[in-house]
Amino acid sequence: MTPLEKARLKYQPTLPKILEELADVTFQGQGKTAALGDEKEIEAQFPQTFGRPLLHAEKGAPPLPKALKVGVVFSGGQAPGGHNVIMGLFDALKKCHYECQLIGFLDGPSGIVEGKTLALSEDLLAKYRNLGGFDLIGSGRTKIETEEQLEKSVAVFEKLGLDGVVIIGGDDSNTNAAILAEYCLAKGCSTKIIGVPKTIDGDLKNPYVDISFGFHTATATYAEMIGNIARDACSARKYTHFIKLMGRAASHIALECALKTQPNLTLIGEEVAAKKMTLKQVTSQIADLVEKRARQGKNYGVVLLPEGIVEFIPEMKTLIGELNALLAEGKDENALSAEAQETFTFLPKEIQQQLLLDRDPHGNVQVAHIQTDLLFSTTVKEEMKNRASFKGKFSPLHHFFGYEGRAALPTNFDATYCYGLGHVAALLIRDGETGYMCALRHLTKPAAEWAPCAIPITSLMNLEVRKGKEKAVIQKALVDLDGAAFKAFDRARAKWMEEDHYLYPGPIQFAGDLALTDQVPLSI
Amino acid sequence: MTPLEKARLKYQPTLPKILEELADVTFQGQGKTAALGDEKEIEAQFPQTFGRPLLHAEKGAPPLPKALKVGVVFSGGQAPGGHNVIMGLFDALKKCHYECQLIGFLDGPSGIVEGKTLALSEDLLAKYRNLGGFDLIGSGRTKIETEEQLEKSVAVFEKLGLDGVVIIGGDDSNTNAAILAEYCLAKGCSTKIIGVPKTIDGDLKNPYVDISFGFHTATATYAEMIGNIARDACSARKYTHFIKLMGRAASHIALECALKTQPNLTLIGEEVAAKKMTLKQVTSQIADLVEKRARQGKNYGVVLLPEGIVEFIPEMKTLIGELNALLAEGKDENALSAEAQETFTFLPKEIQQQLLLDRDPHGNVQVAHIQTDLLFSTTVKEEMKNRASFKGKFSPLHHFFGYEGRAALPTNFDATYCYGLGHVAALLIRDGETGYMCALRHLTKPAAEWAPCAIPITSLMNLEVRKGKEKAVIQKALVDLDGAAFKAFDRARAKWMEEDHYLYPGPIQFAGDLALTDQVPLSI
Repeated sequence: MTPLEKARLKYQPTLPKILEELADVTFQGQGKTAALGDEKEIEAQFPQTFGRPLLHAEKGAPPLPKALKVGVVFSGGQAPGGHNVIMGLFDALKKCHYECQLIGFLDGPSGIVEGKTLALSEDLLAKYRNLGGFDLIGSGRTKIETEEQLEKSVAVFEKLGLDGVVIIGGDDSNTNAAILAEYCLAKGCSTKIIGVPKTIDGDLKNPYVDISFGFHTATATYAEMIGNIARDACSARKYTHFIKLMGRAASHIALECALKTQPNLTLIGEEVAAKKMTLKQVTSQIADLVEKRARQGKNYGVVLLPEGIVEFIPEMKTLIGELNALLAEGKDENALSAEAQETFTFLPKEIQQQLLLDRDPHGNVQVAHIQTDLLFSTTVKEEMKNRASFKGKFSPLHHFFGYEGRAALPTNFDATYCYGLGHVAALLIRDGETGYMCALRHLTKPAAEWAPCAIPITSLMNLEVRKGKEKAVIQKALVDLDGAAFKAFDRARAKWMEEDHYLYPGPIQFAGDLALTDQVPLSI
Repeated sequence: MTPLEKARLKYQPTLPKILEELADVTFQGQGKTAALGDEKEIEAQFPQTFGRPLLHAEKGAPPLPKALKVGVVFSGGQAPGGHNVIMGLFDALKKCHYECQLIGFLDGPSGIVEGKTLALSEDLLAKYRNLGGFDLIGSGRTKIETEEQLEKSVAVFEKLGLDGVVIIGGDDSNTNAAILAEYCLAKGCSTKIIGVPKTIDGDLKNPYVDISFGFHTATATYAEMIGNIARDACSARKYTHFIKLMGRAASHIALECALKTQPNLTLIGEEVAAKKMTLKQVTSQIADLVEKRARQGKNYGVVLLPEGIVEFIPEMKTLIGELNALLAEGKDENALSAEAQETFTFLPKEIQQQLLLDRDPHGNVQVAHIQTDLLFSTTVKEEMKNRASFKGKFSPLHHFFGYEGRAALPTNFDATYCYGLGHVAALLIRDGETGYMCALRHLTKPAAEWAPCAIPITSLMNLEVRKGKEKAVIQKALVDLDGAAFKAFDRARAKWMEEDHYLYPGPIQFAGDLALTDQVPLSI
């Protein structure tokens, strides 16, 4: 263990004031919630859990203390703070009753289906307190969806005698928590299912969840690197850095990193989609920036782009759709429509190859594998050659940040947030609630003032087409172009383009002034 | 300015005790130094500066105080701490005489030749204290070598009336400092030239320079990312991460990062060269690791490789040499020797393309552009397919860390080291010395105990072939396979292969326990 990890083991997260005495607090609520859309269908799919009330932690008498047995699982990609959800859960359970037991399901939801578990003891957990990664119990991407998987899961719950299971995951994993909660009720299984909002992507949020955990640490880690690269750029004065950031379905990470580092240009997928921008337009936008800066002798710059940017460009969506259809029929790119053909021709050779050769097991184009950063640096290079007015130099460099942030040492914010979320999950199970997602409201206030609440997962759902079928799922939160974060970015960005207003956040700090150690995400 | 930068402005580096009263200290030495090799030729090229004694800071009376005018320049790639060399230089000059002036040459050595300068005031410098980057005055890679450049430089020195010029740079830049020092003396110009050892690569060291500045911060930044990736790897348990690190001529960065993070495998170029390993052997070594780990259910891993690794593989050197010759004659790869042809055929298609198409302005293969990480992940993938004994999965991911570390916020070590080096440079100029490189000895001791000294640059030289001609240059320090750092790595690495002993250093800390904030490089 490194010196910093040893120091972090000693960090004591602050609990919301109301959670200081668990024996005096209970989750309460009234009224009926709806869904975000397609209410009838969602109610039909979730007859038992649909419409339950929003719950708040309030002073009151909870059920009599009982030795609960609870399971916990990580689902999907790593997010900093995951271990602290488990710590919080463990500590809260022990506070409720000293004989409570916590067991971890190994390697993600497949550990539920296969009944692969690890008993979580105080001694074992002590080595993971406030640390990054999901390595205590691992994670995985199995989805518990089929009747067979659901049956096996319930059998495992029954066999283990679980009072509750906490699923720590993103939007899809929380959707699955709702399915499992409903299934348990339908089958007369008394195991309660609670979801915890995790994802560095930031696309799992709603009026009660300001942000999912992990987002803060991940973006702070990327911002450290982006700031370092920006400082290098304006020292060396010769490279244009194209920095691709994780975030396929939404551009929250890019937006947050833009606010933290003020690069010259940041592509926000949601804006590109709203403006129906073409590849050429995006290319021109970057090329204009390069040319204007070159006129001031600045042959350098920093451009941020979310990894999913191409899926937000309507003509790329069309092209990929057509290619998938053609490839399935054994045809090639020559059979594309005239419009798609034009888009295809505009693409650099390397990207054309990636579209044609790199297919997933279903024969579809692997959108995640498209080298977006290379795509635009290549089209911009081409454009600069054709601009007689451009007298500068354009030397692009490429970076991709994603895996660097997913298992980082959690910031105080994420460590504290997760520890609190673990407490909320424990109390919900103690109080006999199921099909809920944990939340702590007012995250911009000091942790003592955070307000524990629980949202019926069905109330966050609508119907969406997945793999060709309509499915009840939690609606992904995209960047709100009318929201405060985007507007702040929009107001400032013109100034960041030609002048240099780079910010250098530096590495995450764990000691010193609170202004350094206890920052919160800028976009909440 | 970010909160962390504001906090760092207030950091006060500790000076070596002997530098606390500059009026009582002077650089002294006796005896004659030699060169590392080819002494006669080097003495002939440096008749005025050759053989000067090694100097140590000692109690004694320096020359009478005088208002000195000094120039400073950054040469080559960024390294954390550069601004602090200038701070140290400025503060020391002002302590020697309040009317001393410091001017910066802009954008590297070209700023000397062209006389582009910036007066450095207390107010301006105050904004850069302890911060990263070279953006105060910029940097560049121009080499002052030709008679015309040397003449122009001396004319600029005379016009500005400079008592001294401090060149902050790597081995080649310090070689250039020696050339300039010699030239000034030969032309009767009284400007003294002093070099400061800078490079994140760590390949500028000698018995008096434990390490160049910047190496510590850069490797600590890379180690943060590598640790994060390793924690992600053992959480997700499905990717083998190939992490390429800066370092073309030597593998110090890879070695230091290996000691800091304990990945499963680290290629050290110097060892690969010493063992005359072939591409196939390196591939097999990695493939063996993948297979052994897969047998334990570990379909993941972390492999570090220095960016210059291919140049250490004898058969790749041969191939590249032959290709350069053939391409110059307008021939293609079909004219390769049988041996080189075999090497070429073994390479993945993408790398073959890079070798054939990616040429520098002289028509040579661009070795720096070869995607080494992709090379080995592809050859290993091929090998895994052919190993019937391999039942696991091999999913490689690629990363490259370099630009992320060059302009990072300097660690306390680098901030303090650089501030001290600036003082040494100021005193050497005050004492009328020229052609010297600054040093602080005993860097593993507390800063107060560091011993200022100065090394005649010619004593670090030997003759090497550069661009086809023999040239007197500072010998690059390669990883010493008999040195303590490599031996420590060698003793431990077998254990790191199959078991997981990853270390997660986390982000650089600037407040808290000294064990966190005042670390030093492990390989010194």
